[in-house]
Amino acid sequence: MNKTKINAAILGATGYAGVELVRLLAAHPYANIVHLASHSYAGKRISEVHPALRGICDLVLQEDDLMAAAEAADVVFMALPAGIAADSVDEAILAKAKVIDLGADFRLHDKAVYEQWYKKEHHGDAALGEAVYGLCELHRDEVRGARLVANPGCYTTCSILSLYPLLKAGLVCTDGIIIDAKSGTSGAGRGAKTTSLFCEVDESIKAYGLATHRHTPEIEQELSLAAGVPVTLQFTPHLVPMNRGILATCYARVKKGVGADDVKAAYEIYRGEPFIRLCDSPVETRNVKGGNFVDIYLQLDERTGNIIVLGAIDNLVKGAAGQAVQNMNLLFGLDEGTGLMMAPGATL
Amino acid sequence: MNKTKINAAILGATGYAGVELVRLLAAHPYANIVHLASHSYAGKRISEVHPALRGICDLVLQEDDLMAAAEAADVVFMALPAGIAADSVDEAILAKAKVIDLGADFRLHDKAVYEQWYKKEHHGDAALGEAVYGLCELHRDEVRGARLVANPGCYTTCSILSLYPLLKAGLVCTDGIIIDAKSGTSGAGRGAKTTSLFCEVDESIKAYGLATHRHTPEIEQELSLAAGVPVTLQFTPHLVPMNRGILATCYARVKKGVGADDVKAAYEIYRGEPFIRLCDSPVETRNVKGGNFVDIYLQLDERTGNIIVLGAIDNLVKGAAGQAVQNMNLLFGLDEGTGLMMAPGATL
Amino acid sequence: MNKTKINAAILGATGYAGVELVRLLAAHPYANIVHLASHSYAGKRISEVHPALRGICDLVLQEDDLMAAAEAADVVFMALPAGIAADSVDEAILAKAKVIDLGADFRLHDKAVYEQWYKKEHHGDAALGEAVYGLCELHRDEVRGARLVANPGCYTTCSILSLYPLLKAGLVCTDGIIIDAKSGTSGAGRGAKTTSLFCEVDESIKAYGLATHRHTPEIEQELSLAAGVPVTLQFTPHLVPMNRGILATCYARVKKGVGADDVKAAYEIYRGEPFIRLCDSPVETRNVKGGNFVDIYLQLDERTGNIIVLGAIDNLVKGAAGQAVQNMNLLFGLDEGTGLMMAPGATL
Amino acid sequence: MNKTKINAAILGATGYAGVELVRLLAAHPYANIVHLASHSYAGKRISEVHPALRGICDLVLQEDDLMAAAEAADVVFMALPAGIAADSVDEAILAKAKVIDLGADFRLHDKAVYEQWYKKEHHGDAALGEAVYGLCELHRDEVRGARLVANPGCYTTCSILSLYPLLKAGLVCTDGIIIDAKSGTSGAGRGAKTTSLFCEVDESIKAYGLATHRHTPEIEQELSLAAGVPVTLQFTPHLVPMNRGILATCYARVKKGVGADDVKAAYEIYRGEPFIRLCDSPVETRNVKGGNFVDIYLQLDERTGNIIVLGAIDNLVKGAAGQAVQNMNLLFGLDEGTGLMMAPGATL
Repeated sequence: MNKTKINAAILGATGYAGVELVRLLAAHPYANIVHLASHSYAGKRISEVHPALRGICDLVLQEDDLMAAAEAADVVFMALPAGIAADSVDEAILAKAKVIDLGADFRLHDKAVYEQWYKKEHHGDAALGEAVYGLCELHRDEVRGARLVANPGCYTTCSILSLYPLLKAGLVCTDGIIIDAKSGTSGAGRGAKTTSLFCEVDESIKAYGLATHRHTPEIEQELSLAAGVPVTLQFTPHLVPMNRGILATCYARVKKGVGADDVKAAYEIYRGEPFIRLCDSPVETRNVKGGNFVDIYLQLDERTGNIIVLGAIDNLVKGAAGQAVQNMNLLFGLDEGTGLMMAPGATL
Repeated sequence: MNKTKINAAILGATGYAGVELVRLLAAHPYANIVHLASHSYAGKRISEVHPALRGICDLVLQEDDLMAAAEAADVVFMALPAGIAADSVDEAILAKAKVIDLGADFRLHDKAVYEQWYKKEHHGDAALGEAVYGLCELHRDEVRGARLVANPGCYTTCSILSLYPLLKAGLVCTDGIIIDAKSGTSGAGRGAKTTSLFCEVDESIKAYGLATHRHTPEIEQELSLAAGVPVTLQFTPHLVPMNRGILATCYARVKKGVGADDVKAAYEIYRGEPFIRLCDSPVETRNVKGGNFVDIYLQLDERTGNIIVLGAIDNLVKGAAGQAVQNMNLLFGLDEGTGLMMAPGATL
Repeated sequence: MNKTKINAAILGATGYAGVELVRLLAAHPYANIVHLASHSYAGKRISEVHPALRGICDLVLQEDDLMAAAEAADVVFMALPAGIAADSVDEAILAKAKVIDLGADFRLHDKAVYEQWYKKEHHGDAALGEAVYGLCELHRDEVRGARLVANPGCYTTCSILSLYPLLKAGLVCTDGIIIDAKSGTSGAGRGAKTTSLFCEVDESIKAYGLATHRHTPEIEQELSLAAGVPVTLQFTPHLVPMNRGILATCYARVKKGVGADDVKAAYEIYRGEPFIRLCDSPVETRNVKGGNFVDIYLQLDERTGNIIVLGAIDNLVKGAAGQAVQNMNLLFGLDEGTGLMMAPGATL
Repeated sequence: MNKTKINAAILGATGYAGVELVRLLAAHPYANIVHLASHSYAGKRISEVHPALRGICDLVLQEDDLMAAAEAADVVFMALPAGIAADSVDEAILAKAKVIDLGADFRLHDKAVYEQWYKKEHHGDAALGEAVYGLCELHRDEVRGARLVANPGCYTTCSILSLYPLLKAGLVCTDGIIIDAKSGTSGAGRGAKTTSLFCEVDESIKAYGLATHRHTPEIEQELSLAAGVPVTLQFTPHLVPMNRGILATCYARVKKGVGADDVKAAYEIYRGEPFIRLCDSPVETRNVKGGNFVDIYLQLDERTGNIIVLGAIDNLVKGAAGQAVQNMNLLFGLDEGTGLMMAPGATL
């Protein structure tokens, strides 16, 4: 284990995922934040934009410039809009620093699928070729040797980890899977949009992105790998009037003869995972708020033949910044849980 | 149309459904609140318990006593815990006043189903025999001539009205239906339970009652009637950190060859319904808050073969007090929308 | 009382005050919405922008054009940014229609005070000269004969009505008054600003506009009139994570010898006011939500010599659209409470 | 600095302050939780009651028994209702373990003042005699040598630290001080009361405890000590629909000739304090959420002659559990910030 401090840079540091990275890295025993960048706030201190960080991190924000970041740091976290990473990560960058991309550009192995769902061309073939999908629980060995990690999406992390054991063990039908997911509003980002205003979100719930949400192919990619056959599923996200948290309510039909014990046995694959907690009662997002845990609850309904899997994460931690730090730990040979074993915010 | 004032009584007047009835009846042009009762607050004015009502309704609360209420009023609204109505509504009562029961005791035609899901005996055979299930859009003709109306549950109203046209028209498979529903916290009632505390609900979402929620057989009863064959479905409720509102996200597999036009045509059955709004974009519960509307949005996903139906209501209005008033209007020969055409709370 | 329908126009109809006007006027028995305008959404239906209004009001939004509105309507409600009304309301307009301005341009009698606090020139001398300050409880006789009504600010309505009787009766020192006010987020408007985002407002409270908030001189103007001497006071607004509601916590030092009975007697001046409710326990904003009431609670603290007055209103109703309708009722000879006696949203 | 692990016990471990102590101590490098007690949940694991703690702390809850706790631990944190600590902390206890009482029993030096405001007799004279008021910034030297620490109240911590420099420096009049404070709902505790239900708190703000709140004499005690003369002030708490956070808006009249520079100079007394942050813009409670900081902002209003001081803390951290850990650090010779330098929850 290498205990030298890791110098870290963050592009897109003032967005919600970026600032959560600052929060986590500032408390990480072996990380050192050396470079922060923001297109909108360059020239200001991060603690002017986010006064919560006063005294914790007061770096001046630089312009977003991947090469400058790569030269300054051992690892660059990119939290930028879709397309920028694909356009800019190349051999010159990767020769200088490891890159953990919190965006979507390197998550889908098949460029055509990316272009279909994201409605834009992908210009980063070479980088895509070597990128590793950084869902640590499934791919930690590949991550360890990587230079470029595609940090998974928030909904996808929660959905994949909830359903993976069932598909890996072949206990459920691979068609007819439904994932009804609910997210806190930080998932919509910090852009000043009318639809993200307090008075438009508060005291309401809505579904959005029906049949078209971009996290769908990412979930299908990983569950297809688990199942060994292509999986096509229904993914429906919802916006909930809360800051943080994702709850995925997943439905699948169990195969004939599969019982509660078989299901339980399948999830034994998670034994020893530091961040997965199998729960005895239905999960609540408040129990993972601020922590890196994935809480999972299973219920087989013999009346309908469905298994219901509930998964809960904090979208900004395990769904973004926490998982990125987990990937950083793997990349630099640290214990995977370093700096991430904080208790979630208790009951509130 | 009988324009004499209808004298109304409410048992359980201080619970959330009860006080919403007061709010609606106080604004109803042909209703007159003459009797309010509350087991917990008898002797106090309703406006001491709910100061929002000061100057609107200041009646002193009586002890819960169905006969006293029936003698005082033309119609008695019962908003009491399960079992009480079954034990107390009888010929003597119904000879004196019409009864609209907001509880569950008379909703399920089959007593055995009630006893199975509610885990208690049902002692009201005679009343059950004549009770009409008061989902106005489906049963308004029967309601008009009834003495006893079983006002539907909140989740059920939203779920049934969302899916009814599909099953009536035979466009979807009757197995595999999934209803993933989300409710505001007023649905949990006004009892002082730890799980309903602000700090236990705020900033979190959870599922509950998996595979066992009592609204399940009520939805199945009505959709089976629509389909003409027994329908068994998955119903999963969730608790959302907001006061009011229910969103039902419903999934069904369309039969081979069924297209978007067929689906659209099926919902033409709702043309002319005063409270059903078919929407061009995904519904949000804030758009029905405080109103009696049911907002419905349809999306066929040809990739998966599923149809997704979103339904939204205010659980306290169309899901309880508003529908009860709608039933009262039918019982007394008034226009169904009387006192109920208020705009929902605009955007907030 | 003139029961012919009043034709009403609204400029700025898609902002929170504008849409609340639509909600109230749609339910008003003698009003008829004939013209809606919005700079940002011209060409769309109001119900496309605010789907809550589907079926209630589906008018197409016009461009903001005061003359067009004045020609179409008997009364024009203006809910526009500061400065526009001062620039555009003139004799030609007032010859065609009554104008109720929900903005600040005609509230301050002294143009110099306006220019000092609003940091802009005022170009509407003539209109200012005839404008009546439409705080109905204090100025209803003047409003009745007016052509131009300056509808008071939200904070000011709540603050003035809370303190007025004390200053009118001369019971408190005119210096040292402190108003610590708290508002829901709709008061910040519907503009897409970062500071109004859900995640920036939720789960937090802050003060803003310390010593500089523009409602200060408006409160001072009216309380000085009441006291007969100039009143200079401290006004501090706060932003609360809720949609609606204002609570004003007001502090004044009682003069020597003044007791609780004197204070109580002073508030007798409000006897008979349809919208003022003097309460026996501390007020809560939820009790006025959606209604036009002003709830007031008094407490004399003999230990400190202060009187504390709590006032609560719904900022969008009594603090904006409701009071504007109240003014319309006065302008057109209707009973002041017409269309405004709805119960607040019960407990939630 | 003693780096042996400190064994810690908590009585009242399932309340909001108790569970926050668990959260902080679990992450503290030199603390070891050895004993947790709860009257209501004895026999269950803390992580059954608060599933957020699964894997972080899974101890079985004992019955509340101070002697058992004192025998098991080096330090006992008491988070119990008023009166219990006064009745039970004695020489026998203090001979075995240090005690940090998060309740009110030992905060007021004058027993008569306690009995007047708490309306109950105080039976702990001896303990009261040696208790140290654990507001670390003012009394850290006394705390270091103490056996019994009275951890300050939440409102009081925020109010005292906001105003202390002004009174210490003699810049403001000692009469006429007003503290208008706002708190999140966790301050009301975890008891199952109707007034703490989600639907009774959400979307509303109210004042409570006018002129009678028990934190008043505690603030007066400390500010009188600072001023050298008795200070009588007005303290008004409010309930805000959020989980955590206190904002104190404090008003005082500056003495003649006092200017902004004098005020600024007075707060230099806080230079070097690890947890006090003097801010350039009005504070927001979200910026201290989850952290141990006190954010303070000053504004002198020359127009009115008032100084306004805004103070913000997290009521469960600096207002309870965090300050208790800060006191533990002092008691055991650790650096005061050990285990407490976490960043607040960024923007959300």
